[in-house]
Amino acid sequence: MWRSSFYQRASRVFNDHPTVARLLVVVSVSGGGVAAFSDAKPVSGGDSKKKKVVVIGTGWAGTSFLKTLKNDSYQVEIVSPRNYFAFTPLLPSVTCGTVEARSIVEPIRTIVRKKGLEAKFTEAECYKIDPVGRKVYCRAAPQKNVEGKEEFTVDYDYLVIAMGARSNTFNTPGVVENCHFLKEIEDGQRIRRSVINCFEKASLPNLTEEERKKILHFVVVGGGPSGVEFAAELHDLVNEDLAKIYPAVKGLVRITLLEAGDHILNMFDKRITEFAEWKFGREGIDVKTGSMVVKVTDKEISTKERATGELVSVPYGMVVWSTGIGTRPVVAEFMKQIGQTSRRALATDEWLRVEGCDNIYALGDCATINQRKVMEDILAIFSKADKNNTGKLSAKDFQEVIHDIVERYPQLEIYLKRKQLKNIVELLKKAHETDKMSDETIDIDKFKAALSQADAQMKNLPATAQVAAQQGSYLADCFNRMEQCETYPEGPLRFRGTGRHRFHPFRYRHFGQFAPLGGEQTAAQLPGDFVNIGYSSQWLWYSVYASKLVSWRTRFLVISDWTRRFVFGRDSSRI
Amino acid sequence: MWRSSFYQRASRVFNDHPTVARLLVVVSVSGGGVAAFSDAKPVSGGDSKKKKVVVIGTGWAGTSFLKTLKNDSYQVEIVSPRNYFAFTPLLPSVTCGTVEARSIVEPIRTIVRKKGLEAKFTEAECYKIDPVGRKVYCRAAPQKNVEGKEEFTVDYDYLVIAMGARSNTFNTPGVVENCHFLKEIEDGQRIRRSVINCFEKASLPNLTEEERKKILHFVVVGGGPSGVEFAAELHDLVNEDLAKIYPAVKGLVRITLLEAGDHILNMFDKRITEFAEWKFGREGIDVKTGSMVVKVTDKEISTKERATGELVSVPYGMVVWSTGIGTRPVVAEFMKQIGQTSRRALATDEWLRVEGCDNIYALGDCATINQRKVMEDILAIFSKADKNNTGKLSAKDFQEVIHDIVERYPQLEIYLKRKQLKNIVELLKKAHETDKMSDETIDIDKFKAALSQADAQMKNLPATAQVAAQQGSYLADCFNRMEQCETYPEGPLRFRGTGRHRFHPFRYRHFGQFAPLGGEQTAAQLPGDFVNIGYSSQWLWYSVYASKLVSWRTRFLVISDWTRRFVFGRDSSRI
Repeated sequence: MWRSSFYQRASRVFNDHPTVARLLVVVSVSGGGVAAFSDAKPVSGGDSKKKKVVVIGTGWAGTSFLKTLKNDSYQVEIVSPRNYFAFTPLLPSVTCGTVEARSIVEPIRTIVRKKGLEAKFTEAECYKIDPVGRKVYCRAAPQKNVEGKEEFTVDYDYLVIAMGARSNTFNTPGVVENCHFLKEIEDGQRIRRSVINCFEKASLPNLTEEERKKILHFVVVGGGPSGVEFAAELHDLVNEDLAKIYPAVKGLVRITLLEAGDHILNMFDKRITEFAEWKFGREGIDVKTGSMVVKVTDKEISTKERATGELVSVPYGMVVWSTGIGTRPVVAEFMKQIGQTSRRALATDEWLRVEGCDNIYALGDCATINQRKVMEDILAIFSKADKNNTGKLSAKDFQEVIHDIVERYPQLEIYLKRKQLKNIVELLKKAHETDKMSDETIDIDKFKAALSQADAQMKNLPATAQVAAQQGSYLADCFNRMEQCETYPEGPLRFRGTGRHRFHPFRYRHFGQFAPLGGEQTAAQLPGDFVNIGYSSQWLWYSVYASKLVSWRTRFLVISDWTRRFVFGRDSSRI
Repeated sequence: MWRSSFYQRASRVFNDHPTVARLLVVVSVSGGGVAAFSDAKPVSGGDSKKKKVVVIGTGWAGTSFLKTLKNDSYQVEIVSPRNYFAFTPLLPSVTCGTVEARSIVEPIRTIVRKKGLEAKFTEAECYKIDPVGRKVYCRAAPQKNVEGKEEFTVDYDYLVIAMGARSNTFNTPGVVENCHFLKEIEDGQRIRRSVINCFEKASLPNLTEEERKKILHFVVVGGGPSGVEFAAELHDLVNEDLAKIYPAVKGLVRITLLEAGDHILNMFDKRITEFAEWKFGREGIDVKTGSMVVKVTDKEISTKERATGELVSVPYGMVVWSTGIGTRPVVAEFMKQIGQTSRRALATDEWLRVEGCDNIYALGDCATINQRKVMEDILAIFSKADKNNTGKLSAKDFQEVIHDIVERYPQLEIYLKRKQLKNIVELLKKAHETDKMSDETIDIDKFKAALSQADAQMKNLPATAQVAAQQGSYLADCFNRMEQCETYPEGPLRFRGTGRHRFHPFRYRHFGQFAPLGGEQTAAQLPGDFVNIGYSSQWLWYSVYASKLVSWRTRFLVISDWTRRFVFGRDSSRI
């Protein structure tokens, strides 16, 4: 009675020696022992002199921003309908119980608290943004009935929009009503229950074999990495675990993967696509390419086959819809407000600032970078380089601005790489050679001609966790050095204006892309045309993702989930 | 590509050497390594010559029955709306995230498969029992829409009813609509989400302190072990984990425990009750005894104070209702059918056979043993003992039947213990002494007088997991030895009839009762008036429960959950 609990005492020890806490956890995890990890830095009250940064969303972009934000000269307020960050690459594993949902989430309050950031979190949804009055309108979820006080507004000095996207149904009738999505944690949990429910349903008496087959027909729509991984996980679940405990119906299971394009995993290297299609074919997963879903009823899914134009309807037990992302209504509304009507996401400049707004930033799946075209600025670039206004540029003139040009217009770098040239000077030299001119200088027309193809290299960034995470930490880094860079700008020359940009523009670094294919096989496509398919890739994949955002808690939990699954198999309880 | 997965291979090794598998798992768990554990005994098709045992329910009683049933001369069919067994003593821990829901469940199909039992499981609810036609009517859950084929009947030769009870609301208005129960796994998960939801709700802006306090007022109705444990767990959750991440509202939390009786934990020893009340008082949990809930609206809970007769209404944020159990509608309906109308549960004899039915057994919370009274059979007992029909019984006459009497009427044993007598002979001797008679024999009137108080010792068994589990394994053991005991009956003499009963009657062995009180303290009341309150009791408690029904999987998962909680705290993500 008189002594305090062992947990509390252990915890206190680590609080008194916070610097050793992290190390101790590592040791404890690898050694199989246990240790307490806790650091309680007080979050002080609001300071009205500080600029207020409002972050909307707690996905990859928002969380990465919060994790990198250091400067305590901001007052941070976070609004999101989810009070946690979810490690979404493992979501397909959640659907089949390879990993538990709770193992891949991290409460945002804990993340913020551990950072010692002065931040306030409110669990609510933003439904309107007022860029003139500098405030966002929010509404708490319906289960938070507080007598008309669910709605409130939040003022901001800086607004960071990171609210992601929604699943895209392409307005296909019946999808919302009858399909499962693969986007939120709840989706993963629902799918898991639904799979087991199908097996229990098919085990009911009085059914014909035809009916059982129908119930055990699992359809996955969309041959992207998520859809493919779910199909592979489902196949593993059925064959490794469920076949043993549902022996009467195991032979009736069918998994169909529908893809509207010519190949599954079409954003990957051809070798990976081919391997995946071969592997799925061997395992009995029915891959149907060129098959576009046109309607889903509560019993059947109808597709139009591109090759024949034929309409086919097949009965199903469960459909998982994973075809890509669409714009959230609030983002679409905001885009209309600020006159951005032609795009699927909020257009920003290379510094992630929303075009046409002040102090509003957008990142992750809800944003797209509207990259500046070389050809639009070609005169400005020429005149910046031609300091003496001679109308001609020499190689020496270029040397001075070459770095700025490439930084401001990264498509140039890709273009040069593609042409196997070292830099612009070489490109211009080459232009000379073809013209057979001995003059070392170049005029505006030649300059235009040499660079005319560069803009074709511009590509939108993929809507991936990697991009969102990099944007989040990039932006936070800018915020961290806002004052310093105001005085000492570090960015490229402003070709249209004067002086330099405060910051370097955002630059995405591709670390490769992974597609787990089931049976502990993962296809990896890494930078430099390196393709790897096999058992080691999964660990490579995990270690890449684990590098930045994942907490020790998540690592430990996921590894312990894998251990559980390895020893005991996946659980088939319908909870 | 060519090599099969490591998991599969490892798994195969263990399948080939099943005898070492169990050992290997133990080693791997303690050593931190991993190993596969899998044994796949085929479940063969139905055999019409075998007697068919239908088990309704997969709780403690049903699962314990299935785990003990050995004889492969039965064909077993299980019907339950839950395809898993839940280790319910840890349910209060699930509500606060100390243990994960999935860690305390075990799929019933896996349990049955590991036993090598020929058993068929159907996930459906029994809604009617036909004891004449020997069949049960079942219905699959609504989400299993299979075009009118949700309903089916199951024939039986033996029926084992183990469908448990429901939460009892005592028809208090508003309870079903506004309260959480603490009975099923889903309840635990819902409560967990609801607690976090209350904290997020209280953190919304624009609320007055009064409103926040209201939202963070947690009310627990019922001072039994479940209610007390939930209150204690909630207190720990708030103080150990949530206080850190909801610093703004932590001071506004209030936990109230309402108990209609005079004390909480009133089935326990007075020392435990006093300690619990003292501990809760010190920790700020508001214990209100003599307070009966009369109404619950969506905002307020109204109680009637027994001492003053006063009606009090208090606003709340969440109410957990844990006041005991009531009869399931299907059981009530069945009781009406067979003429049992006066009881709250199915009356059985001491062999767990439902009174008035053939080949129907009932066990667990849905049943109650209608113990035979000594006084009802007093003439039969006397005449059985008085073999020579002398109208008098000597001590020697008794010696022969004493064992049978005590076995058939266990209340006698309790009565004797209470009187501090060794056996009936001593009791009769004592009767003689008071009569100051020298005669060593006794007549029927004296016999009656000596035993007249014995029946007062009869008590219904508590509705606990321990009782249900013991009944399940007792009944299975009877089934296992059905043929053998038909020939060589092992039970006591039939005092009313002739010969012996086939089996020993069911006898409950009390291993003690535990009430976790939070902060790793557990109160234990063990047989022999031994009371223990402290840190060691929790492990004692677990080891008692763990002894029989719990699989290695559950043990491993629960311990790993405790480790997770110890290292990382409880998770506060609202999923």
